[in-house]
Parts: sequence; C-alpha cells; structure tokens
Amino acid sequence: MEFASFLTSLGTSFVIFVVLMLLFTWLSRKPGNEVVYYPNRILRGLDPWEGRRRTRNPLAWIREAVGASEADVIVAGGVDAAVYLVFLCSVLGILVLSGILLLPGLLPVAATDHNLKLAVQHNSNGTFSNLDKLAMGNIQEKSPRLWACVLGTYWVSLVTFYVLWKAYNHVSNIRSAVKANPQATLEDFAVLVRDIPRAPKDQTIKDQVDSYFRALHPDTFYRSMVITDNKKVNKIWKELEGYRKKLARAEVVYAESKTTSKPDGTRPTNRTGFLGLLGSKVDTIDHCNEKIKELLPKLEAEQKITLEEKQRAAALIFFNSRPAAISAAQTLHSQIVDTWSVMEAPEPRQLLWTNLPKKFYERQIRQYIVYVVVFLAVFFYMIPIVFISSLTTLENLRKLLPFLKHIVDKPAIKTILEAYLPQIALIVFMALLPTLLMILSKAEGIPSQSHVVRATSGKYFYFIIFNVFFGVTISGSLIDSLKSVLNKPKDIVKLLSASLPGSATFFLTFVALKFFVGYGLELSRLVPLIIFHLKKKFMCKTEAEVKEAWAPGDFGYATRVPNDMLIMTIVLCYSVIAPLIIPFGVVYFSLGWIIARNQALKVYVPSYESYGRMWPHMHSRVLAALFVYQITMFGYIGLKVFVYAPFVLPLPILTVIFAYICNKRFYPAFANTPLEVACQNLKEIPNLESVYNAFIPPSLRSEKLEDSNQFEGAHSQASRSTPVVIT
Amino acid sequence: MEFASFLTSLGTSFVIFVVLMLLFTWLSRKPGNEVVYYPNRILRGLDPWEGRRRTRNPLAWIREAVGASEADVIVAGGVDAAVYLVFLCSVLGILVLSGILLLPGLLPVAATDHNLKLAVQHNSNGTFSNLDKLAMGNIQEKSPRLWACVLGTYWVSLVTFYVLWKAYNHVSNIRSAVKANPQATLEDFAVLVRDIPRAPKDQTIKDQVDSYFRALHPDTFYRSMVITDNKKVNKIWKELEGYRKKLARAEVVYAESKTTSKPDGTRPTNRTGFLGLLGSKVDTIDHCNEKIKELLPKLEAEQKITLEEKQRAAALIFFNSRPAAISAAQTLHSQIVDTWSVMEAPEPRQLLWTNLPKKFYERQIRQYIVYVVVFLAVFFYMIPIVFISSLTTLENLRKLLPFLKHIVDKPAIKTILEAYLPQIALIVFMALLPTLLMILSKAEGIPSQSHVVRATSGKYFYFIIFNVFFGVTISGSLIDSLKSVLNKPKDIVKLLSASLPGSATFFLTFVALKFFVGYGLELSRLVPLIIFHLKKKFMCKTEAEVKEAWAPGDFGYATRVPNDMLIMTIVLCYSVIAPLIIPFGVVYFSLGWIIARNQALKVYVPSYESYGRMWPHMHSRVLAALFVYQITMFGYIGLKVFVYAPFVLPLPILTVIFAYICNKRFYPAFANTPLEVACQNLKEIPNLESVYNAFIPPSLRSEKLEDSNQFEGAHSQASRSTPVVIT
Repeated sequence: MEFASFLTSLGTSFVIFVVLMLLFTWLSRKPGNEVVYYPNRILRGLDPWEGRRRTRNPLAWIREAVGASEADVIVAGGVDAAVYLVFLCSVLGILVLSGILLLPGLLPVAATDHNLKLAVQHNSNGTFSNLDKLAMGNIQEKSPRLWACVLGTYWVSLVTFYVLWKAYNHVSNIRSAVKANPQATLEDFAVLVRDIPRAPKDQTIKDQVDSYFRALHPDTFYRSMVITDNKKVNKIWKELEGYRKKLARAEVVYAESKTTSKPDGTRPTNRTGFLGLLGSKVDTIDHCNEKIKELLPKLEAEQKITLEEKQRAAALIFFNSRPAAISAAQTLHSQIVDTWSVMEAPEPRQLLWTNLPKKFYERQIRQYIVYVVVFLAVFFYMIPIVFISSLTTLENLRKLLPFLKHIVDKPAIKTILEAYLPQIALIVFMALLPTLLMILSKAEGIPSQSHVVRATSGKYFYFIIFNVFFGVTISGSLIDSLKSVLNKPKDIVKLLSASLPGSATFFLTFVALKFFVGYGLELSRLVPLIIFHLKKKFMCKTEAEVKEAWAPGDFGYATRVPNDMLIMTIVLCYSVIAPLIIPFGVVYFSLGWIIARNQALKVYVPSYESYGRMWPHMHSRVLAALFVYQITMFGYIGLKVFVYAPFVLPLPILTVIFAYICNKRFYPAFANTPLEVACQNLKEIPNLESVYNAFIPPSLRSEKLEDSNQFEGAHSQASRSTPVVIT
Repeated sequence: MEFASFLTSLGTSFVIFVVLMLLFTWLSRKPGNEVVYYPNRILRGLDPWEGRRRTRNPLAWIREAVGASEADVIVAGGVDAAVYLVFLCSVLGILVLSGILLLPGLLPVAATDHNLKLAVQHNSNGTFSNLDKLAMGNIQEKSPRLWACVLGTYWVSLVTFYVLWKAYNHVSNIRSAVKANPQATLEDFAVLVRDIPRAPKDQTIKDQVDSYFRALHPDTFYRSMVITDNKKVNKIWKELEGYRKKLARAEVVYAESKTTSKPDGTRPTNRTGFLGLLGSKVDTIDHCNEKIKELLPKLEAEQKITLEEKQRAAALIFFNSRPAAISAAQTLHSQIVDTWSVMEAPEPRQLLWTNLPKKFYERQIRQYIVYVVVFLAVFFYMIPIVFISSLTTLENLRKLLPFLKHIVDKPAIKTILEAYLPQIALIVFMALLPTLLMILSKAEGIPSQSHVVRATSGKYFYFIIFNVFFGVTISGSLIDSLKSVLNKPKDIVKLLSASLPGSATFFLTFVALKFFVGYGLELSRLVPLIIFHLKKKFMCKTEAEVKEAWAPGDFGYATRVPNDMLIMTIVLCYSVIAPLIIPFGVVYFSLGWIIARNQALKVYVPSYESYGRMWPHMHSRVLAALFVYQITMFGYIGLKVFVYAPFVLPLPILTVIFAYICNKRFYPAFANTPLEVACQNLKEIPNLESVYNAFIPPSLRSEKLEDSNQFEGAHSQASRSTPVVIT
C-alpha cells in the first residue's frame, strides 16, 4: 500500500469518527433519546442529565467518564465492567510504557539504515514507501543494530510482566473487597450439588438430599431445593405470559381507540390460527382472559407435578451462614467422587437450570466433543463456507428456488450476485459464529451463564487469532500453509516471521478503522437508536413493551474481549518490527477505555455478576499473545542472520514461569471464595427465606397471591415473595 | 541361552529356595530367634508361638498366612500393608486370568508354525531352542495367526481394566472404613498450615496464627502449635540421650563385673577425646551423671528460647471436631494463595519437622530442581559410574592411597581388583540409589515421611524401568540408542519391538532368580538374624539396646514396590510374545503375596500409616506398564508386516481414558478425607489436650516431671503427658 492511500484511508476514518461524535453530542441531548443514551442511569432511578443540558461542550462526556471513580463503575456496571476497564487500562499501560522507549529508540535506528534502498537497487523494479523505512525491515542483515530489536523485545516483555502483576493484584483486591462487603449476596449462602446418586426406592431425591446434608452439616444446613425438569411447566408459563402481554397490549389499543368522536372505541380482534393470519376471528381481550383463566389451574397442577415427580439429580443447598456455605462448597463430600460433587452456587439469574442435572461423565464427554468441534471449526472454518458458497452459486439457486429465475437472469443483477454471494456467505457465517460458539459452550453442561460467556470468549479468541491474525499474516490459503506446517512444525515460526513485516501497513489501517469507525458507532449508538424509534413508532403499545425496546443489554464480553485481544496481539507482535503501530494501539485502547467507561456508567446494564472471574482468562491470553510475540521475534531476528538471536529465548521461558506463578498465587481465589473473605462482616444476615425464594425459577412461583399452601415437592414450600434484587 | 542351561539355572535357584525354606522352618523354631521371626507379634504383646511348636509341618506358616483375614492384616500391619497385599493380589489376578486364555490359546498357535526353522535353513548357521519355538517369534510374517496376538493383547488389557477397577474400589472402601472408625486418630483433629505471612512487629507468629484462626473458625478452633527451628535443641537433647544410654550401659557393665570373686567390681572408664581413644581417662558413670546434670538446665533454657524466639512460618492448628478439621483443611483460607496454605496434618510420627516451614516458592523450585536431577540420573546414570570407576582404577588408587601399593602390586590381587573394581562401583552405586533418591525426595520440601516414600518409589520405578527393562531389552549401550531415538522419536517403538523377543529367555531366568532366591532370603531373614546375634553377643548390654538390635523396621515400600512393578512390567510385556513367562509371573506374585502376608502379620512393624495413599501411585504405574505393553505390541505385530496391526491402537487410548476416569472417580478421596467419612461415629472425641501433646517433638517435651509451668512460647504449654500411641 502506498503512503498516500494509507493517509487517505486514515483521513476518511477520522472524518467518519468526527461526524459520529458530533451526531452523538447532538442526539444524546434530544429529549426522547435519553432512554438510548442513559438507560443504566434511568434504571438505577437517577436523573439522566444531572443539569448537564446547559453545557454545549461536545467533550463533556469524556470529562465525566474520566472523572468517575472505580467505585462508581462498580456500582453502575458491576465488578465485571470494572475488571474489563482494568484490562483495557493494563493493555494501554503496556503500550504506553513500551512506546516511551521503543519509539525514540527504534525509529532512528531503522530510519538511518539502508536495507530497503539496497534491495530496490538490487531488484531495480521494487518500490518502498516512507512508512516502510521506519520499520525494522530497513535494517540490514547481520547488522549490530539488531541488538535494538533484542532489547526492545526484552523491554516490552518486562513491561508486560510488571503491568500484569499489578493488575492481577488490583483485580484480586477488587474481588475480595466486593465479596467481603457487608451486604451479603444471595449465592453466598447456597451451594450447588450435582451428580446426586440414585435415591433408594422409598425416598424422593429431596428426602435423600435433606438427610444427607443434615447429617453432614447438622448445625449449618438450612434447607434444600432440588432441581426439577421444568420443560413442561416453562412452556405453560410462557404461554400464560404471552397471553398476559397480548391482553395488556389489546387493552391499550382499545383505550386508544376511544377517541372523542368514537367514545366506545373498537375492540381489537385477532385470528387464532397460524401467526394470526388464519383461523376464526375472535375478540382479543375476551380470548386472552379466557385463555389465562384456562391456563392458571393447568400451570398450578403442572407446578405440583414438577415439584413432586420431576426431581432431577442436582440440588441447591442453603446454609445459615456464609462461611459454612463457602467451606461446604470446597469440601469433598463423598468417598466416590463422581457423586455429590459440590461447588459454590452461581447467582440465581445466571443459573442454567437445564444444565444442572447433567451427570459427571456426560459433562466430560460433552466437553471433549465440543472441544473437537471447535478445534475443527478453528482450523477448517473455510470448508463450511466453501460448501455454502458452492450451494449459493447462481446455478444452484436457480435450481433450488425456481421462482427466482426471472430476477437472477437479468445481467446486472447476475453480475452483482456472482461477485457478492461468497462474501455474503462469509459475512453471515461470521455473524452467526458467536451465537454458534455460545450454543456449543452451553452444550458443555456448564452451570452458569457467566461461565458460558467465558468459554465462548475463549473459543472466539482462538478463532480470530488463527483466522484473522495468522490468516492475514501468512497470506494465501491457510490450509495450504497448514499442510506444510504440520509436516515440519518448526516452520510455523519461520513462516510467521517471514510474513509479518509485509502485513504491517495492512494492520495499521485495520487498527485505525477499528477504533475510528467501530468506536464511533459504539458511542453514537446509531443502530440501537434507529431500532428503538422504529419499534416505538410501529410496534410498542404498552409501557412494558417500550421498556423492552430500549433495554440496553450488557457489554457482551464474549465477543468484545476477544476483539480487543486481537488488536492487542497485533500491536504487541508489531511493536518492535514496526514501532509506528504503537501510537495506533495507544489510541485504540485509550479511546476504548474512555468509551467503555461511558457505556458502563450510563448505558449497559450487567445481566450477571461474576466478580471478575473473567480476569484470569484475560490475563492468560495476554500472556499467550506475549508468548507468540516472543517466538515470532526470535524467528524474525534469526531470519536477519543475527547470531545473537538466541538471546531472546529466555523470554518465552520467563513468560511460562510468570504465568505459572500468577496462576498459583492468584487463581484459586477466583475459582473459590477464600474463607478470609467470607468471614468478614458477618453481622447482616439476610432473611434466609428470601434467599431461598430468589432461587425459585419464575415458572415455579405460585401465581395466587392469597395462596400460601406449601408444596410438598422439591422446594418443600414455594412461597410468594418476590426475588431479592442483588446490588 | 540353550534350553539345558536355562533348566540348570532354574534348578539351582529352586534348590537354593528349598534350602532357605528348610532353614527358616528350623531357625524360626529355635528359642532366642523369636524376636527375629515374630517381632510384630511380640511388640503387640502376643505369644509368638501360639502353641505351634508341636506341629513339625514346614508349611504351617503358609496355612496361617493364607488363613488370616484382611482385618487381621490391617491390625498387624496397617492399611498400607493391606493395600500392598491388594496390589500383589491384583497383579496375580491379572496374570492368572490372562494365562487362562493365553497359554492354551497362543502356545499351540506358535508351536505349529515354522518361522524359526525357515530362518535357520536360510541362515544355515543359526540355532534355536525348544523354548523359542513356543514364542510368537515362530509365527511367520503376514500370517493370519497374528490375529491371535491382537486378540491376546485385547484380552490382557480388558482383564487388567477389570481387576484394577475392582481393586481401586476395594482399596477405596478399606480406606474409608478405617478412616471412619470410631477410634479417632490424632491427625484427624489437626490441620497443617504453611506459608504463614510475616507477622506484624508487635506480634509473635503464634499470636498471629491464633487470632487468624480464631476469627475464621470461632466455634471450632481449639489451639495452635507453631513449628519452631529445633536444630539446636535437638542437638542438646540428642547429646543428653546419648549420655543416658551410656550411663545405662555403664551401669550394666559395672553390675556384671561384680562377680563373687570380686564383689566391688570394676567401675568402667572411658576417654573423653576423639572416639574414646584419646583424652583423659574418666569414670564413665560419674562422667555421665555429671554431663546429664549439666545438660538438663541447658536443654530447658534452649527449649524456652526455641519456643519463644525460633518460631517459623508454619503451624499445626487443632480443632475440636473431626469434620471441622477436615473441612478447614480443604477450604481456601487466604485471598493470596501463596499464604496460609492449609492441608490435612500428617501423623505426628511421620511429620518432617524441618520441611514444614519451607515457603511455597522454595518448595516449587526445589521440586523442579529435584525432577531435573532425577531425570538426568535416570538417563545418564552410567556417567557417574564411569567417572567413579575411572577414579578407582589401580593407577589412581596407588597415587591416592600410597600405603596400598604393596598389596596392589601383587599379581594375583591385581588381576582380581582390575576385574571387579568397576562392578563394585556399580553395585555400590545401585545400593546407594534408594538412599540417594530418598534424600532427593526429602529435599523437595515434602511434609510427611509417607509422601517421601511415595515420591522415592516413583523415582526408583522410573529408574529401574528405564535402566533394567529398556536397558536389557535394547541391549547394547542405552546412550547410543537414545541418541538415535531422540532424533526420531517414532523409532523407540520399533527398536523396543525388535529387541523384545531376543531377551525373553533372559527375563524368564531373571524372574525365577528373583522369586526363588529373593523370596527365600526374605522369608528366612538370614541377614537380620546374623546381624542380631552378632550385635547381641558383642555390643548390646542393656534391654533397650537388645530391643533396638531386633527392631524389624517396616516394609520399605520405596524399593519393594518398584521391584514388583518391574517384574509386572516384564511379564505383561512378554505375556503375548512369550506366554511361557506367565506361569513364572504367577509364581512370583503368589509366593510374594504369601510371604508378604506372613511378614505383615509376624515381622514388619509399620513406621507410619498413610491409609493406602500408595494405591493411586501403584494403580497409575500398572496402567503405565500396560500402556508400554500395548504400544510395544503394536510395534511388534507391525514388524511382522501384519496389515491389521492398527487394530491394537484403540487400546492405548482406552488405557488413557480408563486412567482418567479412575483418577476423577477415586483419587480426590485419597488426596483429602471426604466429609461423609469424617462425619461418621463422632461420639468418641479423644482428650484434645493429649492430641495436642502427641504432636510435640520429644526434644521439646519438659524433662522435669514435677514441673508444670507453662511455656509462653510457640506451644503455649508444653505439658508432661506422654505421647498417645496410635492404634
């Protein structure tokens, strides 16, 4: 790529960014849009504007984002958001500290050498840009200037170790501080038991669980809740909820139709058949009321059957103190270890109810199958795409969908379709990938949503690192390169090192595009804004529907973190080869940090809280990227025929040792809650009954408020309290 | 080896065995020898003979050994001995079940083929024995008879899985039954804490430990004992004990010298200098009394200083209930995991006091250093031996020790020395190896003796498998073969498979020698008998000294188990190639089982009890041997150009899966005590004070019986109770 075209691309991106920023400033001030730009504040019952309408400064949000304390972030977005910000901040720190030494150190070393000039003179028809002159490619072979590369690699590695150590310590402290807080969380009192052995014939699982835990924890056992198979009851409950929503909507429509000219209004009607298009016409309000009346006793009967007869081999055990629950969750219970396996209970809102009763060996087998599938997907993702694109050639389309024949045969449309069909297939596949990975992760039998997100994030990370980073770098068909690499595994370092410099400019542009356009869209929230207004105008009738239309969702760590990781890997790997990429990385992560802070404080609402359990994954992936970087640098310096290249080799070993030490020192406190933390501030014990009730899934809650009869099933008593909201 | 010479060797071994058996029958009946043949029974206060002197049946001991129940073995030799017997019995089971099918199945298949005859005709000068005709080597290449080999491999593998699964279940049940027994053991109430962080300036470690555990376990914490640096106090105490022994001995000598002719006797004297050879002559009794009087206050002062000032960063925490201690030992205590690490306390008698305060990272580093040293020792054990033998050449000896010149220069002695010096170096090195490995294992920072034995056993296993099995099989210099193997790792299977058949007869003789001579010596206890009588005659004066002379020691699992493992590996690997080895293996393990039972019931006294924690190690090593066997068989069948050889390949995969499942299902209950087990039979709580006192090392116990003052140091109170003996 020429220098001019690089500048053009950079300029265009920047203009788009400025336009989006201005749009954001203008749109976020318009009344009616506050639910799109400040949903988090609104849901927390705060004034979205806080007297900020007067200032016309388009950068006021930056001051607010930077000015907020970490405690504010934790209150607004939870520990997970705070940890995500620590991650962005750490990478920023690594890049800034690296840049301080590398930019003034390496650029002059590279710029004053003449390798490229010599190469051009030699080849006579080669060209090189000014940008390439500033990269290490301009250093001649065997030149002692390559010492600068070696030292640069050392500097980046040491900086990374320092920053990561600090950050792990910091996150560990955040986690323990929040976990030790006096406002006890619900799940602190509960333990999840899986792999309950088959109960004796005269006992229900519930009886068995109760007697087992009462015997082992005579002083601290409070009560148990056996996991039930809720498939049927959920179906009835969803149907019921559907009719309730429909009823509410119909009532609003009816009320709105009562204009002054037509005081009686028109009662809304619908058809009962397929999608409301077929079948007999009925009065919606009457129909819904009827259906609800019909479903209520059905639900109640099904609830009773579920609780009594559909008990499955997992349970939640509630204890009367936090240390007792924490300690029970970490103690081996059974002599035979594939029965009665215990773990700390996840939050009620992120429990994956259907995964809980999956048995030990089933989980193991599922996990390995999923690993194999993901491995194949990562390495051979081209194959399904090629398959799909071969399916979607025009010839095949014409055969499969003959009614398209007339359109397809027009020459203009034909050309366009032929050019874009494979790309469209690729885009569709890439868009479906996170969902696919999420489904795969869920199929592993993981008990909580946050764990599924972590698992998905890991899979996605491998996918984009292999397919974007390696894929672009080792340009050409990845499968062909793989074939040669599999034969001689040593060659991957050589291949990567040889291909890296060529892609430097491509990645510079890629990073710039990512932050200018990506962050511009993220901040301006154009897509959610348009969707919200469309929905509000054409679909939403009731308050609840409007609220649903602007519900902001959470950060989506499963895709967000791997994408940041990709940028980090790219910048790290090029930090010495083409130091000019560092400022781009700095801009990416500083902009990212500011915008993520803004979104955490004002927009996104966390859908679960895992107390920073994402961190160990981020940490080890940053180290993995560092490892790849160090190996690549060894190969790169070696390719320059520099005899001191092996001086880089202690670095990957150091990285492994560092990862091992961090894992030993910090990780167990993320996997389990330490007793030290659980024993603090024990005074405020919440009402245990309300803790218990919070874990009852909505479909099993009693519908009749006046009814306080006790189910004698799995939950022994499904009382009518509302769930306790976790702060 | 010719068939005749094989029979000669077998016959000789058998004659030796019969002679040793008769010696045993005769010697064990002689009065005065009962302390050598029945020490375990004597120490348990039982009659060694039990009216058995009348029967003159030389095989009576076999009836007794076989007739005893497993419960008897546990009472006499502990769970560890019972588990060792289960191991012998399981291997026996595997071999018997394998033999039932392999011997009648494979021998005819091999004997009716003609490969060896053809080879001999081809080479014209080759020979083969009748023994070789019965091995798989007699099957021709590509012959469909090789299917028998494939099926044989499957049969052996499936039998192994079945027997091992049963055995693991059985051992797991023994362990839980003994652990759940109502007679609580001391260590059940204690937890070992290591990596205690630096105490604040105004606190001792003891204060810090107390306040930390009192806060975290307010209801169940009883008291703590901080580990101290006992080097100096141990030295004084040993000196004191030495003088006491000397005094007792001198008093006996003095009493014996009072004959009727000389009623005053002669007071024994000794010299105070080097080894009692130099220095001034003193009256021994007076001298010892003086020294004891001198040392007593010194000991007491040092005890006080030790308890107050030499506290180290580890402690034992005592709880007032078994489940509380078990649960605490499995719960993560600190947010920062390299501090306050907890584990179940080992028995007081096997605590390695000096290893306890070693810090987390120190332990890690030591462990890896030891691994590297052992790895080098296993692979390059020839190098130190060559080095030592080069040092011990006659030339060097003459230079280093000139006074030997006259002896060495005599031609007869010279020849003998030249021939045997290297062998002697090898024998010395092999004899020192277990001790060396034990020291290395101890240097890892392991807290208990049983763990050290397990670690040593593992190291020794690798050593003999590599150096005896692979060493003999791939005959010639192992280092040379290794060089070629390291270049092409695939070749090891080929190399091993090609060399195996040739060594079959060697190993047949080896196994026979092992069991006939080895077990004969073991049963007849000739060496301990001679040593005991020599000691009794020339050295022992007091009762205590005599008792020390016949102290039987324990099984010595560290070398015994790996040696059995070696035989098992050999027999397993040859089971299909030369099925004739199976009966030898059956004899080895059945004789071994009977003799080990006899020794467990009557001879050896366990020096610690680990409740069968050796089993998971034995289990995984049997599986490792099976794995080697399966891979070797794949190579062997492949060498015979049999196209269906890959049908063997699912077996190693099955082995890995089986190992994984067993590990998941059973292992955690060996690493920790399950709560289910700890909660049984809680009624008999022992006196906690006596539990506490049992952990005080002897050098820190108060010497003055009348003194009950409280030390305010690490133990807070070193009272004068005697240790509680564990049953």
